Amino acid sequence: MMLSLSACPRVAVALALGALLAGGPAHAQQLSEVQKPAEPLTLEQQGSFFVGGHPIDIEITEWEELGPDFAKAFGMPGKAMVDQMYVQFQKPPGSERHVPIVFLHGCCLTSKTWETTPDGRMGWYEYFTRKGFPTYLAEQSGRGRSGFNPTGFNEVREGKLPPAEQRRMLLATDKFAWLIFRFGPKFGEAWPDEQFPMDHVDQLYKQVVPDLILTEVASLGKQFGSPETDNPTVVNMATLAKELDGAILVGHSQTSPVPTQAALKQMPGIKGLIQLETGCFSNLTPDEVKVLARIPMLVVVGDHWDTPQPPPDCKKEMDEINGGGGDFTFISLPDLGMKGNSHMFMQDKNNLQVADVLIDWIDHHVEHKKN
Amino acid sequence: MMLSLSACPRVAVALALGALLAGGPAHAQQLSEVQKPAEPLTLEQQGSFFVGGHPIDIEITEWEELGPDFAKAFGMPGKAMVDQMYVQFQKPPGSERHVPIVFLHGCCLTSKTWETTPDGRMGWYEYFTRKGFPTYLAEQSGRGRSGFNPTGFNEVREGKLPPAEQRRMLLATDKFAWLIFRFGPKFGEAWPDEQFPMDHVDQLYKQVVPDLILTEVASLGKQFGSPETDNPTVVNMATLAKELDGAILVGHSQTSPVPTQAALKQMPGIKGLIQLETGCFSNLTPDEVKVLARIPMLVVVGDHWDTPQPPPDCKKEMDEINGGGGDFTFISLPDLGMKGNSHMFMQDKNNLQVADVLIDWIDHHVEHKKN
Repeated sequence: MMLSLSACPRVAVALALGALLAGGPAHAQQLSEVQKPAEPLTLEQQGSFFVGGHPIDIEITEWEELGPDFAKAFGMPGKAMVDQMYVQFQKPPGSERHVPIVFLHGCCLTSKTWETTPDGRMGWYEYFTRKGFPTYLAEQSGRGRSGFNPTGFNEVREGKLPPAEQRRMLLATDKFAWLIFRFGPKFGEAWPDEQFPMDHVDQLYKQVVPDLILTEVASLGKQFGSPETDNPTVVNMATLAKELDGAILVGHSQTSPVPTQAALKQMPGIKGLIQLETGCFSNLTPDEVKVLARIPMLVVVGDHWDTPQPPPDCKKEMDEINGGGGDFTFISLPDLGMKGNSHMFMQDKNNLQVADVLIDWIDHHVEHKKN
Repeated sequence: MMLSLSACPRVAVALALGALLAGGPAHAQQLSEVQKPAEPLTLEQQGSFFVGGHPIDIEITEWEELGPDFAKAFGMPGKAMVDQMYVQFQKPPGSERHVPIVFLHGCCLTSKTWETTPDGRMGWYEYFTRKGFPTYLAEQSGRGRSGFNPTGFNEVREGKLPPAEQRRMLLATDKFAWLIFRFGPKFGEAWPDEQFPMDHVDQLYKQVVPDLILTEVASLGKQFGSPETDNPTVVNMATLAKELDGAILVGHSQTSPVPTQAALKQMPGIKGLIQLETGCFSNLTPDEVKVLARIPMLVVVGDHWDTPQPPPDCKKEMDEINGGGGDFTFISLPDLGMKGNSHMFMQDKNNLQVADVLIDWIDHHVEHKKN
């Protein structure tokens, strides 16, 4: 599979936005910029819970920080939970008419991805709820409120493990985000038609967290490239669909392959797969193609890719699955006349218009409404 | 200040609950146990945003993980945001009649603290919203969706910093939680009148995350003991109260001193301080007492402390502040006839009854309603 992170520049006139980079004055007013919707939102239910998780042994707890007496009383070895996945949700009245939808964020981010946009507009979490869906945000195991497996870090600190064995923390800088999220042809220059709210890009940088996925999987490349995986997030997503008795799974960027990987766990409950930027596999076995041909699949990409869309891996998978009686749709937003969308189109200025593309697909391919 | 984490056992008949420890069967059904409220919840607004944050330089990004070409294209040094504080909120219609309330979680936890309880009941986030308050959950800088300052970890991995200089990760095991949260006289035994839902204690363990507060403050003991602090969470909380143009700040356990510390920043907007388990200072200067005497303060503690309540530091502070014309209230829940509450009383079986104690205090001391 081609890594879906590729974002090399193509030639374009670019708008200089250097004055708006991190450290500029814009970020002082974030609360006051959060916009109030025209109509109230009524919820039948809201809440949060965990999926998965299991206890491991913890030897070094570091409570010497509060002195030897405290460490002796409370810092003894014990067990801690790892690999659990935190999920928040909300359901509007009448949501039983829709298939629940579960959103999973990408690299170096948390479920904040789907909430209020960097410039204070409504995110997809609220929008899908207002559109009637039981809406779930799953936080990757190893990230944010899901916690992470701390094995090794304190051992390195205490000289009990070689430093080179400590898991890498993947850090997304401003430059990384600018290029990977396709804000412009080079750092500090935005595409003239860029849909991301670049005057609030510093607020996006605040969403970025150190990425500890290497505490959950042995190799990020393998996680991207392998239809079969032991990534705890994948089995947790499959388990959630089963516990929901039916769900559409949505992945983005780093987790774009996760819906497919979850489907290949062959647990009941997955009613649709939506993969954003991108998550295709060109290395499926015939048996895997058969499994995937039973579930409607949608891949959506934005603008300013340096290669034609769909890319070869998506084209091959689409042909295999549709050739096997499946229902695989690839949508490049520019082909629908939507220009300038970034890798983060759930936060772009036309984010609700992009959401409607997903909802239209759900209507016709998952919920089978008539045109 | 006495550390508010003390939880030594006192003599009591204890109920053996060993079968319900982490790894037991109860945690398979968490989603299905989330309870639906009797009435829908109507929100005028919901969303999330950040307070504070500033860019730092990142030299090592670790994108060699995806190969040298990827690292060369995207892994160059750059800037990343640190010390920001993630805040989620919801407001019911008519909430302008109430002072906004901001909840800040404690050690080794995230804002999940205030959401659905481990056994699927309504948490304080929804309850205060239903009671009419604009309700905010702040996630400590350095925790969960706020991210953390990664300085040092990768440098240690790459041999550029001695391991001993890596920040400690404070790890709360099952034993730590059992004793610190006062579930019982010793690990595996609960108090006979324990109010925490002990049959779902494994779900609490899933809320526990590695605590990286030492990436934000140089010393946890000093953070507990010093009225003045440079903890980014403290100035972020003070800033939030200012941006809200008035707020009640609530801290718990590790952050129980934060409301007072934020008030001592002397920014406008803090209308009330609520400190849960405990957060008192016995080392205030006369000038600090004067500042605090202008703001109503409430300290609430649960049951099963091994020392008389209020403890000496709270007694001294209360006398100083009330002697200086202030309004300091100390409530020990057992004195109100509420027995068996743990350190986590926002999740205890009588959690909404405890919330009503806070609301009654707000009514009379902050919003000045008549009795």
